[in-house]
Amino acid sequence: MPDDRLAGPPADLELAELHTSLEDPALASMTFLNEVTGRYPKALSFAPGRPTEEGFDVEAVHRYLRRFCDHLATDRGQSPEQVRRTLCQYGRTSGIVHELIARQLEVDEGLRTDPESIVVTVGCQEAMYLVLRALRRDERDAVLAVSPTYVGLTGAARLVDMTVLPVASGSTGIDLRDLAAQVRGARERGLRPRACYLVPDFANPSGLSLDLGTRRELLALAEREDILLLEDNPYGMFHDGSGRLPTLKALDTRRRVIHFGSFAKTVLPGARVGYVVADQRVGHGQGRVQGFAEQLSKIKSMVTVNTSPISQAVVGGALLENDFSLERATARSRLVYRRNLAHVLRGLETRFGACGSVSWNTPSGGFFIVVDVPFTVDDELLERSGRSFGVLWTPVSHFYDGKGGRNQMRLSCSSLDSAQVEEGLNRLAKLFVDKGVLGVDTGTDSTPGCSSVSM
Amino acid sequence: MPDDRLAGPPADLELAELHTSLEDPALASMTFLNEVTGRYPKALSFAPGRPTEEGFDVEAVHRYLRRFCDHLATDRGQSPEQVRRTLCQYGRTSGIVHELIARQLEVDEGLRTDPESIVVTVGCQEAMYLVLRALRRDERDAVLAVSPTYVGLTGAARLVDMTVLPVASGSTGIDLRDLAAQVRGARERGLRPRACYLVPDFANPSGLSLDLGTRRELLALAEREDILLLEDNPYGMFHDGSGRLPTLKALDTRRRVIHFGSFAKTVLPGARVGYVVADQRVGHGQGRVQGFAEQLSKIKSMVTVNTSPISQAVVGGALLENDFSLERATARSRLVYRRNLAHVLRGLETRFGACGSVSWNTPSGGFFIVVDVPFTVDDELLERSGRSFGVLWTPVSHFYDGKGGRNQMRLSCSSLDSAQVEEGLNRLAKLFVDKGVLGVDTGTDSTPGCSSVSM
Repeated sequence: MPDDRLAGPPADLELAELHTSLEDPALASMTFLNEVTGRYPKALSFAPGRPTEEGFDVEAVHRYLRRFCDHLATDRGQSPEQVRRTLCQYGRTSGIVHELIARQLEVDEGLRTDPESIVVTVGCQEAMYLVLRALRRDERDAVLAVSPTYVGLTGAARLVDMTVLPVASGSTGIDLRDLAAQVRGARERGLRPRACYLVPDFANPSGLSLDLGTRRELLALAEREDILLLEDNPYGMFHDGSGRLPTLKALDTRRRVIHFGSFAKTVLPGARVGYVVADQRVGHGQGRVQGFAEQLSKIKSMVTVNTSPISQAVVGGALLENDFSLERATARSRLVYRRNLAHVLRGLETRFGACGSVSWNTPSGGFFIVVDVPFTVDDELLERSGRSFGVLWTPVSHFYDGKGGRNQMRLSCSSLDSAQVEEGLNRLAKLFVDKGVLGVDTGTDSTPGCSSVSM
Repeated sequence: MPDDRLAGPPADLELAELHTSLEDPALASMTFLNEVTGRYPKALSFAPGRPTEEGFDVEAVHRYLRRFCDHLATDRGQSPEQVRRTLCQYGRTSGIVHELIARQLEVDEGLRTDPESIVVTVGCQEAMYLVLRALRRDERDAVLAVSPTYVGLTGAARLVDMTVLPVASGSTGIDLRDLAAQVRGARERGLRPRACYLVPDFANPSGLSLDLGTRRELLALAEREDILLLEDNPYGMFHDGSGRLPTLKALDTRRRVIHFGSFAKTVLPGARVGYVVADQRVGHGQGRVQGFAEQLSKIKSMVTVNTSPISQAVVGGALLENDFSLERATARSRLVYRRNLAHVLRGLETRFGACGSVSWNTPSGGFFIVVDVPFTVDDELLERSGRSFGVLWTPVSHFYDGKGGRNQMRLSCSSLDSAQVEEGLNRLAKLFVDKGVLGVDTGTDSTPGCSSVSM
């Protein structure tokens, strides 16, 4: 059989006649990074931002489902017929676990929110899509995003043809001076900067977190410049044990913040349940006002109709089982990530500590560390790293929309065990030797400025 | 407390500065129709296109999940750890039940398809969104749609700012002469008609089906005019027992058809699992070709990342349990719909048979009947029908993008039992009396041309 990819019948459609997002590196990123992992299944991978599988349990899925059905019967007084309907039938567009999510936000974040302002979505990704779709009216609308930026935000923006304007992260997680300058510069160019996207806790990929003062200043700036803040909070629970800072939404008194949540890291990714808190008021003319959440729900009805109630039930059951505390639900995985993060940081120090040309940041939590290296980090090197050295990681350039991060790699600590971390770093060191950064331990230091490592 | 909808703080956002789809009747349709149902919970409803709940069973959900996990272990040789990962972790963007779906299409439809050309989606709605997003490059791209049109197609088109051009359905389910004329007319106006959307079996809302000859002619026309056909097939299984005609995709030898499938009516809506078969080849220049399914998958990665593997497992388990035959899985519900359809048709005949100003079509299967009446059928009448007469139905105008169907109501037969059908039609007759179409049975025929009904 001939390979259809290369020969065979002519094309039915031309890429040049399909939506431009399909030619964009942002959309290729996700697919490329997944494919690389698939091509080197035996490689040790610091690449994926996926959670540890230590807590995964098929029986827990069944248990969560039963727990939620019990809740429907006991707490909400549903008859067996109503329980069946809730789980199996079409349902409320904005979701059926919004009230449980509101309780979780109050328990964990001290955030009191009207459940009607919550839209439950197919993962946080759909929430980002809905918000950008709503905010992008025409070609003048732009979204700001702290750079490097989670590629899912950039990709969603591409789908709605919305310009993404990068904002420097600086050392505080967001360079407020740059943000103000970007907003004003955009307005001068005739653009309408609508919102600024950021991950205030243990950002992906930078690992940076905003301190309390920066959070307050950012809220004041958003008010002053009349923009919204899009707060994405997938990693907040994975702190170092010293507690969490309040979310931007918890500090928000002026409805400036749209808050995205995900249960992918705190419960399980397989449910594909996320949400958005959107308590903004939308004016309809003649003094009529509706919630922004209702607008997002209208868009959702034409994207996915509603989030699977079975999936929602799984997440709902997990919330019920943990008395609405994700802090409690994540107690075990938090320790895994803390241990792994410390392990990777220690391992980097051991191997590259004396090598002045290699450096890295030291996040206090989350999944990610960024390593700066004196060579080009691109997709080609990643392929070679997988093929020849059996170790994977993520080129940070994917988070810069192709315009930065060419000397940085992201190491994720979330999905390896201790032995794998150790072996993975050994393999990484071999790659570094190959790139001429480290010398092989032959008894002599072969690379100026760097200590040698034992391979 | 003041009502925030009317008074309170000023708006944070203005509708006029959000995406235009939010001002469009198509997006309001779904929400309005849902809300009406919610406002009159005691009304008998001929409105929803939802499936019967007779087969719903919480334990079946658990059983399907277990069956799929057994399949992973037994047929695919996955270890317990791999089974956990498949169910709980992030997964393949295009889905994990694509091979099972390919088998079902072969068993039920005689359709042989490469599983790689299937993208599993969050309901059929996401599939429609992905295809329209891909096909809409700029303002010249348009999609044709047999009118009246399922509002989900119109809504998805609004989200990508794509023009929808109506095509007459005529008496054959699609007026091929009008289709050709619309394609040519659009091209003359500088538009690019990319595809034509239709439901060939028991269409929503018209109930019409295409005969075999019309299917073949439509495929020939699509080839001649160089357009794709978007075949949506949610109701095909609900025939009258005399068997099904081949789908357009099964007749398609030139990759002209993109086939949408849904498990909402055949397994259960609560899983929110649908799919698209997209075997078209996309040229990338320099002779390189990729599958259209791969392009759709790239878009999906930025909308929902992947469809919940837990939801997919539920559907996969149901397919396994029924030896891949939805014809078999739907044996019971098919009888329910057949019985209900016959019951409603008989009940209409009894009540309105002698009334020349009221008529209806007689679909041979599916969920829907369209009733033509001599008065205006709009949202206001629906509200009154729910409030004063305790019966709900759907104004067909919602399926005409506001430009037709002003004297038609859609009756759905899918979600009532026999007693409810009988009582529902009695209530409908009262509405008709109120509108002056029928006389009350006082022993005299008070409305010329119509027999009276016993109330």
